[in-house]
Amino acid sequence: MWRLHHFALCPFSRKLRLLMSEKGVPYTLEPENPWALREEFYLINPAGRTPAMRHEDKDLVLADSRAIAEYLEETVEKNPMINGPAANRAEIRRLVALFDENFWGDVTAPLLTERYAKRVVLRQTPDSRALRDAMRLADQHLDYCDYLIDHRRWLAGATMSLADLTAAAQISVVDYLGGIDWRGHESTRGWYSVLKSRPSFQPLLSDRVDGALPPRHYADVNA
Amino acid sequence: MWRLHHFALCPFSRKLRLLMSEKGVPYTLEPENPWALREEFYLINPAGRTPAMRHEDKDLVLADSRAIAEYLEETVEKNPMINGPAANRAEIRRLVALFDENFWGDVTAPLLTERYAKRVVLRQTPDSRALRDAMRLADQHLDYCDYLIDHRRWLAGATMSLADLTAAAQISVVDYLGGIDWRGHESTRGWYSVLKSRPSFQPLLSDRVDGALPPRHYADVNA
Repeated sequence: MWRLHHFALCPFSRKLRLLMSEKGVPYTLEPENPWALREEFYLINPAGRTPAMRHEDKDLVLADSRAIAEYLEETVEKNPMINGPAANRAEIRRLVALFDENFWGDVTAPLLTERYAKRVVLRQTPDSRALRDAMRLADQHLDYCDYLIDHRRWLAGATMSLADLTAAAQISVVDYLGGIDWRGHESTRGWYSVLKSRPSFQPLLSDRVDGALPPRHYADVNA
Repeated sequence: MWRLHHFALCPFSRKLRLLMSEKGVPYTLEPENPWALREEFYLINPAGRTPAMRHEDKDLVLADSRAIAEYLEETVEKNPMINGPAANRAEIRRLVALFDENFWGDVTAPLLTERYAKRVVLRQTPDSRALRDAMRLADQHLDYCDYLIDHRRWLAGATMSLADLTAAAQISVVDYLGGIDWRGHESTRGWYSVLKSRPSFQPLLSDRVDGALPPRHYADVNA
């Protein structure tokens, strides 16, 4: 069985939890604290980032969420998530990168710092300007999601893909931290609500971390 | 023919130039200034980053260096660069992420800011502490390269792969900016010197940008 080294509010770990659940791959969780990583964790992932995962029967250690997603895509046939002709697959991967890099850097990372790490780990005062900037950028990213969903059934095309799981994982962390203002984003809200209703999403909605509780709508699949 | 939107010192663009040359894919270059992107560029890549590329005959626009690399791997048979069984492919992609994210964030991005953007674009004084930190981290990354090359023929295993092209692209930008102290890194220096001698590397070694000239050893394939 796979053992996933993760942090409950790490969006890259959440992407893999969604993916493994959608593909029916069983796994157990090993929590890691991203602000105080164990020395042993660096042996698993020299990049010093969650997620990483180990399969003891196969003597295999994998690291990096995109590398692991591609591995699962190549080795598990059920529910392909990087699907279609090469140009579609490129579009899926472009959107994965957009959310893993731009949305993460603009929105998720500053929210995690200001609303979680500074409160729980670093004991510092949040920077209200950084928070305001992140929430303004969140709004722009959701505008782009609205645009995509108004033109396609799912973010990258006609079928659900790794792009949807990646975007929903990032958004779920920001939503947990109260950083999403859903007003004016009905298209994205409808798409996210469909994802939230899937069995793969339930473990993420019931996750709680010490020192930060989510707003009431976070776990409400009808919200 | 492909038209690659790039910046001469963008390591992600350089990775694709190496890859396309190794795979024998013809292309032309369209220079973009990352500090003053044209509005039209955002229509090509909403993420606002080089590289992106267009194929007019195929009415196709691709963005993100990893998505494009995977597309080329899937559509061009010559010289596979994400090769081998799934576990090897995961190891190649892990190292691509390590260089594209950690090496970039620790070393290449600060060097580009301090030694290029502040001098040429922003007209600010470089932050000597940020430079010192970046060069110290470069040394640690090269230690890890030495370790890999002492145990394997190429970074990710027995054959040259996208991991080597990615790492060499990042290192080449830092070396251009005088940020690599090669002393004590004989293994990596030997590996890099082999890559530098390949025909695919020659256009990168003759690139020059206004306002910053490389040290003499930069273009010397025997250095």
